[in-house]
Amino acid sequence: MESVMKKRIRLLISCHDQPGIVAAISTFLNHHGANIVQSDQYSTDPEGGRFFMRVEFDQNNDSITFEALKTAFTDVAAEYKMNWRMEQASRKKRMAIFVSKEDHCLLELLWKWHSNELICDIPLVISNHDELRDVVEGYGIPYYHIPVSKERKAEAEQKQIELLHQYNIDVIVLARYMQIISSHFVDTFKDKIINIHHSFLPAFIGANPYAKAFERGVKLIGATAHFVTDDLDEGPIIEQDVLRVNHRYSVPQLRVAGRNVERVVLARAVNWYLEDKIIVYSNKTVVFS
Amino acid sequence: MESVMKKRIRLLISCHDQPGIVAAISTFLNHHGANIVQSDQYSTDPEGGRFFMRVEFDQNNDSITFEALKTAFTDVAAEYKMNWRMEQASRKKRMAIFVSKEDHCLLELLWKWHSNELICDIPLVISNHDELRDVVEGYGIPYYHIPVSKERKAEAEQKQIELLHQYNIDVIVLARYMQIISSHFVDTFKDKIINIHHSFLPAFIGANPYAKAFERGVKLIGATAHFVTDDLDEGPIIEQDVLRVNHRYSVPQLRVAGRNVERVVLARAVNWYLEDKIIVYSNKTVVFS
Amino acid sequence: MESVMKKRIRLLISCHDQPGIVAAISTFLNHHGANIVQSDQYSTDPEGGRFFMRVEFDQNNDSITFEALKTAFTDVAAEYKMNWRMEQASRKKRMAIFVSKEDHCLLELLWKWHSNELICDIPLVISNHDELRDVVEGYGIPYYHIPVSKERKAEAEQKQIELLHQYNIDVIVLARYMQIISSHFVDTFKDKIINIHHSFLPAFIGANPYAKAFERGVKLIGATAHFVTDDLDEGPIIEQDVLRVNHRYSVPQLRVAGRNVERVVLARAVNWYLEDKIIVYSNKTVVFS
Amino acid sequence: MESVMKKRIRLLISCHDQPGIVAAISTFLNHHGANIVQSDQYSTDPEGGRFFMRVEFDQNNDSITFEALKTAFTDVAAEYKMNWRMEQASRKKRMAIFVSKEDHCLLELLWKWHSNELICDIPLVISNHDELRDVVEGYGIPYYHIPVSKERKAEAEQKQIELLHQYNIDVIVLARYMQIISSHFVDTFKDKIINIHHSFLPAFIGANPYAKAFERGVKLIGATAHFVTDDLDEGPIIEQDVLRVNHRYSVPQLRVAGRNVERVVLARAVNWYLEDKIIVYSNKTVVFS
Repeated sequence: MESVMKKRIRLLISCHDQPGIVAAISTFLNHHGANIVQSDQYSTDPEGGRFFMRVEFDQNNDSITFEALKTAFTDVAAEYKMNWRMEQASRKKRMAIFVSKEDHCLLELLWKWHSNELICDIPLVISNHDELRDVVEGYGIPYYHIPVSKERKAEAEQKQIELLHQYNIDVIVLARYMQIISSHFVDTFKDKIINIHHSFLPAFIGANPYAKAFERGVKLIGATAHFVTDDLDEGPIIEQDVLRVNHRYSVPQLRVAGRNVERVVLARAVNWYLEDKIIVYSNKTVVFS
Repeated sequence: MESVMKKRIRLLISCHDQPGIVAAISTFLNHHGANIVQSDQYSTDPEGGRFFMRVEFDQNNDSITFEALKTAFTDVAAEYKMNWRMEQASRKKRMAIFVSKEDHCLLELLWKWHSNELICDIPLVISNHDELRDVVEGYGIPYYHIPVSKERKAEAEQKQIELLHQYNIDVIVLARYMQIISSHFVDTFKDKIINIHHSFLPAFIGANPYAKAFERGVKLIGATAHFVTDDLDEGPIIEQDVLRVNHRYSVPQLRVAGRNVERVVLARAVNWYLEDKIIVYSNKTVVFS
Repeated sequence: MESVMKKRIRLLISCHDQPGIVAAISTFLNHHGANIVQSDQYSTDPEGGRFFMRVEFDQNNDSITFEALKTAFTDVAAEYKMNWRMEQASRKKRMAIFVSKEDHCLLELLWKWHSNELICDIPLVISNHDELRDVVEGYGIPYYHIPVSKERKAEAEQKQIELLHQYNIDVIVLARYMQIISSHFVDTFKDKIINIHHSFLPAFIGANPYAKAFERGVKLIGATAHFVTDDLDEGPIIEQDVLRVNHRYSVPQLRVAGRNVERVVLARAVNWYLEDKIIVYSNKTVVFS
Repeated sequence: MESVMKKRIRLLISCHDQPGIVAAISTFLNHHGANIVQSDQYSTDPEGGRFFMRVEFDQNNDSITFEALKTAFTDVAAEYKMNWRMEQASRKKRMAIFVSKEDHCLLELLWKWHSNELICDIPLVISNHDELRDVVEGYGIPYYHIPVSKERKAEAEQKQIELLHQYNIDVIVLARYMQIISSHFVDTFKDKIINIHHSFLPAFIGANPYAKAFERGVKLIGATAHFVTDDLDEGPIIEQDVLRVNHRYSVPQLRVAGRNVERVVLARAVNWYLEDKIIVYSNKTVVFS
């Protein structure tokens, strides 16, 4: 298992569709001793549309390093003007979790991480409150309490950014963080911030979605995991799911029931991110699930 | 079966919550030879909230007619200031279906009616187009083609209303009718018009929800059956459901996939209506499903 | 909230169906100052079938104690030969959890208990292994490690039974306990032992259901919460759910995916038990969910 | 659309996994002027496992016919000892439907065929009863009533086989046909007969699954579409789904509710077959959905 993971590589590509791309990629991989384990490819339109591909392969040729393989691929990539990245499955991504006071999404991530369902490192958790320190530290993870007040928001964000850089963070998960993120922060970590919104977006954008859902009398409540952009709740959707409710649910009961769909949806989205299954394009996601 | 249905009665009640209501109702029923088969009761708040109840009972006492039973119940109802109705299960409701050109919702209703899943009469189908005449008449149901132009909309609606009165219609189902209904029409058939909207309301209100869903990149598409009110797509929701989609779905493919959830949701809502399982209150529905 | 819970009472009834039962019950409740908050009633067949009812009411009359109310109800119950029980919502049930080495079901229950989604006391956890001691004791719950060997199984069970009696346990949850329970144990806690089986019963009875599911090539995997009886995996089913899988899932991946549906299904079943929503009858359950 | 469909081709491959397969296939396609629109590939185990692939491509090179392309591919296929087939999307498959008396699955297929959701020809429907003649002939499809008695079963099957050959049938759908098929028949149309079983297999194999489901008190009922093999209800599963039920469902109500999941599951499986998305291997299916 260990050895398999060490040599497994994932290649993600997005580019203008042109004839011969798949042949070029697979011939390149074959020449470099790679054995394709799984591949998914999709074109929005074969006549000049957008081409998306995810290839998972085992690099059997020990004579070439991962870095050299990436360098070698640059030529193929240039020819087709690809947006691309190559990732080693064995290199665990470094994930920061932001929380506020609610623990359900945090606990789901920690449990799945602890039981090896989420393959990543979690070097730190950041919160604007101190409530969840014990549970986080209980897992041996540093907990940073950075209070966020209206006046000193920029300062708080600066501290957060420093920590994220210091810990070499790859991805930030807002596990019910409940704070608006500034444009500056979003730009610094473009397509690397995953949020869980407690509604089926675009229904009930903004605050208090469960109160709005109650008011409207919906028969399903939902949750949406999405990348954070400058527009509140408007970023590329990664995953959504719903839960059946009925007239007997009060707002607090909707909130409690909703936790269950929130944590499931967030965990699924995070997992896809960690397994390099998501390509963002044109404010949407292609998910090779 | 036949005889059971003949004497089965459904009682629906909505009123201010007060102690003793259930006892009053069940004692009344017992005194009149009724045997309760199923009952559901729900209060928004036991301290002065709203009381909702649905009782299904068999009237074993042949010495009292259904009309006399209703009259007798008037006293109980008055004491507790109830909104109520009593319905004989054996009296088939008379349902009109409005369609435009798309047949999937219509066919679902016709098939379920034909196979006795929807217990009702369908005395007529009204359409602003002539396309679906053959299929409707094939079931032996009169088909009325009433074209709707901008200029002569009021006239068209007048014709529709006359037909609906002439056929003693209890409930109108807009099975993808795709026309805005006037306030006058809505008021004439308050809480008696069921529409199917091709999105998970309140997401994607208005026209072209599938195009909007594609644009937003949602991972689930939905459908909503609701009572029609003056506010477009804002009426009390009866039922909703969703269907998983992904980045590979074009707008036409979303539309095709969506048909399947539309017809299921509409058929479920219509069935609940026909079985007297819905109480409308405060722009929401209580569904005793 | 506190005061509401203190006086809320649940009444569960199962008996031969006869006219006048609902009236008798609701009149009794009304005479004793109870206000019915919610009631559900169902008869298998109005002509001599089985009658099931769940009533939730608030006891507003302070002049009668809960015990006196129960005594008073004895007459009504006797008249209709009812199986019945009356429960105070404020009296937390005492739940013992049995585990082996896998933690996902245990953690789900502990988290939902900790966040007040499951209203109960958890006086102890019993395991045939010592692995999960830390997490359990971390919640302040005593952990009893009782090894179970083939030869000394009876002895181990005797210890377990003593502990369960000593702690006044109301319900035992086998949260992936993975041991066969003896008839003696089952009889001692009839209809009080809830198990989670990791398949959609009756498919894949017995050991290794995920391996069997893989072998058969099913497209959904499931989990089943049921009361334990003498017949392995044959007890009354409380709840079931499924998860979509495909050809890409290996047996270990099915096992990992399956955890998510196991814990959801078990938590739902336990919650219904704690809220007195389940009546067992004829190796089935009536769940007033 | 028409022209796109005319040149779109699907290639399905199953073989022993070896390095270089994807490169060989994509290079072949590129050399022959094909533009890959979508491709999915999966290996059971990169180290000597089984390789499965589905490629959908547009053949832009008018100088080579489809037959010539297939011939040319023979060399690649031989090198890797592939099981393979190449299909023109524009060549509609010829589907025969077998029915008995129940119409729900038949109607679903006919409606989806009529509305171009199922792209195929339906040259005939065969039934052991005459009940559904009108609806089938109403769609302009020949209806063959071939009664099946115990004594003359072989003779009836012989007639069926002759008709299927005469009409050049590609796939046979048993849309609640309710008759056991002989080994001879099964062998004649290996991996070409799709059945819908009215349970979540392997639960409730054989007759009367809804009665068995009622008896066992399950909380979900299901349906399974599978290829027919000699072992009753043991063939490769294509698709399954479930529906939530509860204690209130009688056997007839389970049967009625079940129809809805049966027709959905069957239609999905048939659609995948028609779109060449299924590979059968080792009594399972790989579905590139």
